[in-house]
Amino acid sequence: MKNRPLFTEQLAHAWSSQDSMLCVGLDPDPKQFPASIKGKGGAILAFCREIVDATADLVCAFKPQIAYFAAHGAEDQLAQLIDHIHRQHPQVPVILDSKRGDIGSTAQQYAIEAFDRYQADAVTVNPYMGFDSVEPYLKYANKGVIVLCRTSNPGGSDLQFLEVNKKDHTEKELLYQRVARLASSQWNKTGQLGLVVGATFPEEIAKVREIVGEMPLLIPGIGAQGGDIPATVQAGTVPNAPGIGMIINSSRAILYASQDGNFADAARQAAIATRDALRAAKQ
Amino acid sequence: MKNRPLFTEQLAHAWSSQDSMLCVGLDPDPKQFPASIKGKGGAILAFCREIVDATADLVCAFKPQIAYFAAHGAEDQLAQLIDHIHRQHPQVPVILDSKRGDIGSTAQQYAIEAFDRYQADAVTVNPYMGFDSVEPYLKYANKGVIVLCRTSNPGGSDLQFLEVNKKDHTEKELLYQRVARLASSQWNKTGQLGLVVGATFPEEIAKVREIVGEMPLLIPGIGAQGGDIPATVQAGTVPNAPGIGMIINSSRAILYASQDGNFADAARQAAIATRDALRAAKQ
Repeated sequence: MKNRPLFTEQLAHAWSSQDSMLCVGLDPDPKQFPASIKGKGGAILAFCREIVDATADLVCAFKPQIAYFAAHGAEDQLAQLIDHIHRQHPQVPVILDSKRGDIGSTAQQYAIEAFDRYQADAVTVNPYMGFDSVEPYLKYANKGVIVLCRTSNPGGSDLQFLEVNKKDHTEKELLYQRVARLASSQWNKTGQLGLVVGATFPEEIAKVREIVGEMPLLIPGIGAQGGDIPATVQAGTVPNAPGIGMIINSSRAILYASQDGNFADAARQAAIATRDALRAAKQ
Repeated sequence: MKNRPLFTEQLAHAWSSQDSMLCVGLDPDPKQFPASIKGKGGAILAFCREIVDATADLVCAFKPQIAYFAAHGAEDQLAQLIDHIHRQHPQVPVILDSKRGDIGSTAQQYAIEAFDRYQADAVTVNPYMGFDSVEPYLKYANKGVIVLCRTSNPGGSDLQFLEVNKKDHTEKELLYQRVARLASSQWNKTGQLGLVVGATFPEEIAKVREIVGEMPLLIPGIGAQGGDIPATVQAGTVPNAPGIGMIINSSRAILYASQDGNFADAARQAAIATRDALRAAKQ
């Protein structure tokens, strides 16, 4: 599946043509599969494919979480799933959520994994090891690279919320704000970067938006994780440009809306409700 | 391969019975394989197995880097390699270098990947998302969890070298020192943690050692990456306990000591020289 468009163009197109900021996170947990699928060979692929086909016209992106495939040795199913999305729903970009972070020569191997092996359109990465751990992904000029910035898990503040100051610098800011500033300035010469910012703290999304301008924000944490939709959308909106700049993820609330035979329909209904709530909030 | 001993006991035993602080990093790069192996099916496993068998009596640990397997879809070869090490060289612990970092429910999947699927004895993890991204690994009571602290790549200082202070705290320290302090105190109630500290800056290894007491340090960066062996060993030595507390990694300088048919012999000679240099430095 060569010659995919620029990730940023795919996103812009999806935001506008689908009028949706919803991203469906594909975190397949076999324990929660409906009985019709549970325990069968290829169950992970079968489950995800049904979710994808039921929701592809409602989303601006799909986000498979690689850990859920790796725990079950289901790398081939992940590759087939992404290939299926590219073929059947070519308008929907695929973000591989892997949060890798390593030195340059190893990051290069992870870039091969994400972009050559899995043909993802974008990948999430961890900033702790600095710019040269991000750079190898940028050599794939049409791909997006979404850097972890502020996460809304309980331990998210352990490091991200520390006040930092440089020796030559009197101004103070929080570590996640520094990451936002780096990722939107000297790290982003190629315009390929985005940021992960959790939905739990809308005032922090607003702060990041203020720092980064129009940069795409991947925002997990609505739905099962409890983030407030109107507050999230208002905080993350690009000034004077409602409906763009955010990839707002919901996983479990959509995937497991029902665990019966009608799970794909239930997922579709949950996705419609979430998309519509996101639409309503941007007014 | 159930019932492996505690990682910390495996390490203590290896340091003492093998009198070695050398860890051989398994970063298989097919481009650098000898002609006798290059291009054959299962080449990654065959190459690594020869390196392992040629060096197992010289090391305190093996450290496969998962990216080098994932880039080539060689997960099965990685699983077979670790199984081979456990069976043939049961005294040598295996550290899976994967530097994962994600929220609790996803970290749990990565823990399954590392410990159930691959049967690693320890894993490297990234601290950016805080304690609850580390905690799921600790549920495997006999396993080690080695947290990224200070890395010696060019971008390592982008975040790790920032000065941090908490609002309720007048004292300042660098971010990597905060990570060392967290990982050696409130994060380490179970005694399973270690830290990754690069070899390039011996004074920083010394600083970390001062903070963490006897905690095991995984130190990459000697050999091809240029870290100075005597300075590294002196900086990382546990006071009054030479020969323990460090897992000092060399990858390329050993793996690719020769690219001819004698590569395993050449790797053994390089490993002996490195082990002996580490031994000499601890005096």
